[in-house]
Amino acid sequence: MATVAPPADPESDPRVKAVFDDIRQARGTDYINNVWRYLAFDPGLLESAWADIKAVMGTPSALDPKTKEMLYVAVSIANGCGYCTHSHTAAARNKGMTPEEYADLLRVVGTASRLNALLSAIDVPVDDIYRAQG
Amino acid sequence: MATVAPPADPESDPRVKAVFDDIRQARGTDYINNVWRYLAFDPGLLESAWADIKAVMGTPSALDPKTKEMLYVAVSIANGCGYCTHSHTAAARNKGMTPEEYADLLRVVGTASRLNALLSAIDVPVDDIYRAQG
Amino acid sequence: MATVAPPADPESDPRVKAVFDDIRQARGTDYINNVWRYLAFDPGLLESAWADIKAVMGTPSALDPKTKEMLYVAVSIANGCGYCTHSHTAAARNKGMTPEEYADLLRVVGTASRLNALLSAIDVPVDDIYRAQG
Amino acid sequence: MATVAPPADPESDPRVKAVFDDIRQARGTDYINNVWRYLAFDPGLLESAWADIKAVMGTPSALDPKTKEMLYVAVSIANGCGYCTHSHTAAARNKGMTPEEYADLLRVVGTASRLNALLSAIDVPVDDIYRAQG
Amino acid sequence: MATVAPPADPESDPRVKAVFDDIRQARGTDYINNVWRYLAFDPGLLESAWADIKAVMGTPSALDPKTKEMLYVAVSIANGCGYCTHSHTAAARNKGMTPEEYADLLRVVGTASRLNALLSAIDVPVDDIYRAQG
Amino acid sequence: MATVAPPADPESDPRVKAVFDDIRQARGTDYINNVWRYLAFDPGLLESAWADIKAVMGTPSALDPKTKEMLYVAVSIANGCGYCTHSHTAAARNKGMTPEEYADLLRVVGTASRLNALLSAIDVPVDDIYRAQG
Repeated sequence: MATVAPPADPESDPRVKAVFDDIRQARGTDYINNVWRYLAFDPGLLESAWADIKAVMGTPSALDPKTKEMLYVAVSIANGCGYCTHSHTAAARNKGMTPEEYADLLRVVGTASRLNALLSAIDVPVDDIYRAQG
Repeated sequence: MATVAPPADPESDPRVKAVFDDIRQARGTDYINNVWRYLAFDPGLLESAWADIKAVMGTPSALDPKTKEMLYVAVSIANGCGYCTHSHTAAARNKGMTPEEYADLLRVVGTASRLNALLSAIDVPVDDIYRAQG
Repeated sequence: MATVAPPADPESDPRVKAVFDDIRQARGTDYINNVWRYLAFDPGLLESAWADIKAVMGTPSALDPKTKEMLYVAVSIANGCGYCTHSHTAAARNKGMTPEEYADLLRVVGTASRLNALLSAIDVPVDDIYRAQG
Repeated sequence: MATVAPPADPESDPRVKAVFDDIRQARGTDYINNVWRYLAFDPGLLESAWADIKAVMGTPSALDPKTKEMLYVAVSIANGCGYCTHSHTAAARNKGMTPEEYADLLRVVGTASRLNALLSAIDVPVDDIYRAQG
Repeated sequence: MATVAPPADPESDPRVKAVFDDIRQARGTDYINNVWRYLAFDPGLLESAWADIKAVMGTPSALDPKTKEMLYVAVSIANGCGYCTHSHTAAARNKGMTPEEYADLLRVVGTASRLNALLSAIDVPVDDIYRAQG
Repeated sequence: MATVAPPADPESDPRVKAVFDDIRQARGTDYINNVWRYLAFDPGLLESAWADIKAVMGTPSALDPKTKEMLYVAVSIANGCGYCTHSHTAAARNKGMTPEEYADLLRVVGTASRLNALLSAIDVPVDDIYRAQG
């Protein structure tokens, strides 16, 4: 169940078809996963979401693709997005994340969450040494 | 202002002194940052928090130290812990994170947060292809 | 699966029946949706939850009903309540939200979530000009 | 204190100057608020954040500007971004939000947050009638 | 800095005065803490917030006052409300919470937050044995 | 569906078997619930998670077991962990939580969530009287 119905024939809309074609080319697969099929209910929203993902996750940048996917997973866990956690854990594996690295990721996420809670509880003042040095 | 007062002379407690000494040795500095000085109000809590951080963040593992600190930052941002965000952004820099990598981290955190919200809004069903393959 | 079992015959309790009757009258339908049937496990909790919803969402006030439902949806997405997101997206549509307005709502929720994360990451100080002027 | 230092002379970078000029023109004021001055540490990040805000919040769309700002405030409260809550509450007022409408916004945010928690606690199953009808 | 200015002479409004008098009587002190002085900008919002707190936190019920305040603190930490965490930690102490109990509360909050993150990351399916038995 | 596959024969790994045996003994039941069967994909993660739960939730301390489980439930609701909410609501009942106490827990969680949102919205400054007195 979702709050919108995915279009029955999404690629009859040329804007949707253009995005789907670009996804297929970027990923080297014919499979279009659910997020894009549901976002197709509004072509403008689909276009901007794909443009954002492509620019940030699919374009070479300072961090390597595997690290970026692991960061995406960490954020998705903390924000409670089940779909995002599943799809980007799969993406991180596709980009080389090993089982040992995944367990390590989970350890960091768990420890950070624990300490985040403790420090928010106590409201520890930030040390002057952490002031930005640019 | 915090919910507990940091002990005036924390190292008069031998359990606290042992943790502080271990922190100094592990980090090669005499500076004890606020989180440990405040947690010292309860030596058992201090010991378990430091043991957790040391085992997960300070021990060689599958992921390199810089990547682990960046994951910690990503989680802390999403969980809204200001202290943790400041202290682990500083730690990531100390472990080699460049300004370009930091900007990249922020881009991933921002894009993930945007898509997390969109997919939770629509409640997109998880594709079968993401089922774990172990 | 839920953490409580909905009563098999909830309206045998006169307090529950009074709330259900009020819901039916307020909405002009015989259908009682799940939230009320489950909350009926504790009549006092049911009464206070319905009184709150009726006073805030079902009573004429400064904002029109459609706007209030869209605000409710935005909060429910950010808080990760799937049931609430579904039921209040439906309510917003019942009160006139068009597909274009819904896509606009999603765009705002997505952009706000992205910028919320960026600004919490950097901990940008609040400008003096935002001080309340009453 | 922030995790980055705002550039001392941001407009010496032509990409930053172009964004600042566009902000001034779009808003009809010379004041550049802190978020943009801090994001200027990375011109690419500044450009994409401003482009996102301008497209979603500053371009005519299905929802009126005041409603969009109120939705932005609601999300920012739920996500715990203090800066965003302050700046967009001010923006909503600038676009016509009255004190009565603001109190109404707070009532909806409060009631939604309460019910979000109750329903997540009980894990109420979503009714079939909320399935999307497109 | 807050998003509203507290009224300069709040008790000149009889509705505000009635709430403040009730707070003073319920607590046996003349001190009115900031939350009520700021909420006084809208008497209706003040009345409903105080009525809610009084009914839930200030009225004898199944759980004792100290336990209720500790639950309130746990929720406030997780929701990232600094004011609420401070004021209800103080309230829990006033109602008898010892330093040892507070450290225990923090341990539970920390461990729960860690496991919450781990289980959301893995998306562990709920066991049938947890189905409600009413 | 989960992001990892639970091992088909987990107790063939002696580290997993040792944890499972300890769980069975601590709880006086042969049933191993899903969280442990899934965490068994990484024995080190399983060991540290169980050690944490056992030390904090299964060891006599300042707070009684029922209160600790209710605090765990409150945190899990606020953090949006469905599995944790279900399993620890069941644990709290096993340790004596009555239906009336559960309804009271829900009332506190609901009221706290409402006020958390209101005070974060307004950004009420913390009163000096809440400064820690140690």
